[in-house]
Amino acid sequence: MARARDLARRGAGRTGTNPIVGAVVVRDGREVGAGFHRRLGDAHAEVMALDQAGEAARGATLYVTLEPCSHHGRTPPCVDRIVESGVARVVFPAIDPDPRVRGRGWKALRDADVRVDVGCAADAAILDALGFYRDRLGFATTVTLKMAVSDDGMVARAPGQRDDVTGEAVRTDVHALRALHDAVVVGIETVLIDRPRLDCRLLPGGVDREPVPVVLDTHARTPIDNEWVRAGRAYIVVCAREADGARVEALVRAGARVFVAPATARGLDVAGVLNALAAVGLTRVLVEGGPRVFWSFADSGLWDAAWLYRSNVAFGGRGVRLFRHDDERFPGCVVDEQPIGSERRFGFVNEASWSLLASALARAGD
Amino acid sequence: MARARDLARRGAGRTGTNPIVGAVVVRDGREVGAGFHRRLGDAHAEVMALDQAGEAARGATLYVTLEPCSHHGRTPPCVDRIVESGVARVVFPAIDPDPRVRGRGWKALRDADVRVDVGCAADAAILDALGFYRDRLGFATTVTLKMAVSDDGMVARAPGQRDDVTGEAVRTDVHALRALHDAVVVGIETVLIDRPRLDCRLLPGGVDREPVPVVLDTHARTPIDNEWVRAGRAYIVVCAREADGARVEALVRAGARVFVAPATARGLDVAGVLNALAAVGLTRVLVEGGPRVFWSFADSGLWDAAWLYRSNVAFGGRGVRLFRHDDERFPGCVVDEQPIGSERRFGFVNEASWSLLASALARAGD
Repeated sequence: MARARDLARRGAGRTGTNPIVGAVVVRDGREVGAGFHRRLGDAHAEVMALDQAGEAARGATLYVTLEPCSHHGRTPPCVDRIVESGVARVVFPAIDPDPRVRGRGWKALRDADVRVDVGCAADAAILDALGFYRDRLGFATTVTLKMAVSDDGMVARAPGQRDDVTGEAVRTDVHALRALHDAVVVGIETVLIDRPRLDCRLLPGGVDREPVPVVLDTHARTPIDNEWVRAGRAYIVVCAREADGARVEALVRAGARVFVAPATARGLDVAGVLNALAAVGLTRVLVEGGPRVFWSFADSGLWDAAWLYRSNVAFGGRGVRLFRHDDERFPGCVVDEQPIGSERRFGFVNEASWSLLASALARAGD
Repeated sequence: MARARDLARRGAGRTGTNPIVGAVVVRDGREVGAGFHRRLGDAHAEVMALDQAGEAARGATLYVTLEPCSHHGRTPPCVDRIVESGVARVVFPAIDPDPRVRGRGWKALRDADVRVDVGCAADAAILDALGFYRDRLGFATTVTLKMAVSDDGMVARAPGQRDDVTGEAVRTDVHALRALHDAVVVGIETVLIDRPRLDCRLLPGGVDREPVPVVLDTHARTPIDNEWVRAGRAYIVVCAREADGARVEALVRAGARVFVAPATARGLDVAGVLNALAAVGLTRVLVEGGPRVFWSFADSGLWDAAWLYRSNVAFGGRGVRLFRHDDERFPGCVVDEQPIGSERRFGFVNEASWSLLASALARAGD
């Protein structure tokens, strides 16, 4: 299933309204076929993997990250193709929350005497396609937090300094993560220090649509000659009502969309920011920091999942720490841990959000 | 929740028919109380953690590895104590499958206006107490496989040789694992090469009852002057009907219990072995290898979970490999990964077994 998850992520940014899906065919302990959903309208992952396996699929096990479909959509039902292939067993983590599926693929397979095993490593698989699961179950917005820290929990070697915390493999993984979101949120400090591009340029297949950069910028300090203007990309600046009018006007003239959200003592109001983004259809939101923005979302409770990348290099005593005190714990639950290059990626979920999702998913399958 | 799981394991081998349980009280990102179920009849983990937290529990979050109970057993209902403590939120992974609980603790908390979040990292928490979950849901036997390999997947540096693959932290972890089982199964080759004691001596608090060593020994070659005879422990030898009568008699005279199981080309029949053990009440079975025994269980499908420990030392080309060919995949799904000392522990589940467990648990909660 870990292999199927890796495959799935290769489709990130090109599946449109479909989720990313990966599939592997295993026979006698050997992989005989592999596939992923490459692009909206293209073959589903199962079909690609079964095509590759050919006759070797007979009696094999199919691992797939999403329940196979049993309806005619842009492609014929995967269930028919699976039954035809002679696969003996299908393993998937959870039911597909799409109202057209919701257990129907499972039932169709069982009725055709294919053995079906459901429920393994469901947390991790749902986490990978969280925006899809939440959307299909009727939740409005999905907020994902992302941070990268050194082995000793630092985000930079010194205040005000830009440091690459992690390597190329993690950067590519982060670009896939961006491709699964509509908007990427950063704080103004990050913009001023790092000048991040917030795009998906490292993905080999490109993406259909880059996510929209969003700067949380109480006082409208975003530079007018920024990376996004130069790249001809749309971007959003969210500032407080109290921001300097001339600066806001200059930003608007330079092509920024400027939204206003209530200011609080700890920065812009998180609910206000999310509402403003949802109003323009940006409902899958990735929050990339810095630490202040990260904690404003974490403390608000208005987040669903978090990915924390940890390198194996220590930055030492002068660094900027992610956690605010020594024994602070991140307010979520780890449900996934994977090596990414020489670093590690931890997947957290917000227990409150997860609890609601799990019960909605259980009801959807009845 | 990872911390609560670690705490839970400290009670391994002393909770009798109760499961191991750990609990942590967290307030403002800080741990203010911790507890675990120490011994059958003693305070439950939640109560111990809340006692330690005292007034700091007010408004805090309680993480516990099992649904709190709402009935009078050997101790008063934990739910009452939780409500009294002023805790604002309780997080647990899954419902308690015990027929006296099954969602009643959850409901009682909710009725008392305590926020309850359920469903995070359920796989890992159930895996930790798998024998308990399966027993309470009506499954007869629980089979856990365990192997330790070097970084390059070897179990020894050369054939016929005993090598410590992993360090002290892993050995202690394995002793806790043994304490959660009734029987520990090894092959005759392992007995002849390693002379394992198969006990729980590294657990600081000791155990109420050591698991029973079981040797799969087709030809009754188990030495009569073995570790268990010297330690005065009961042990079982399972051999084939074809085993030499004199050797069997000598073993019986020396105090071994000898069972007979059908022999197959690949060793003793796994179902036959499990039936013989179940007949004498040994239903939580840990299989510790070597590779031949490991694969006879894995290939039979008659297993539920597997723990694989991997060290960071490579043994090199002359070693004995766990996997039988280069691209072989273990026939299960990883649902947990933890560092244990300088090594890593992977928790696998058998998808078929898990699928049945998940649906039984879902039905139990309705």
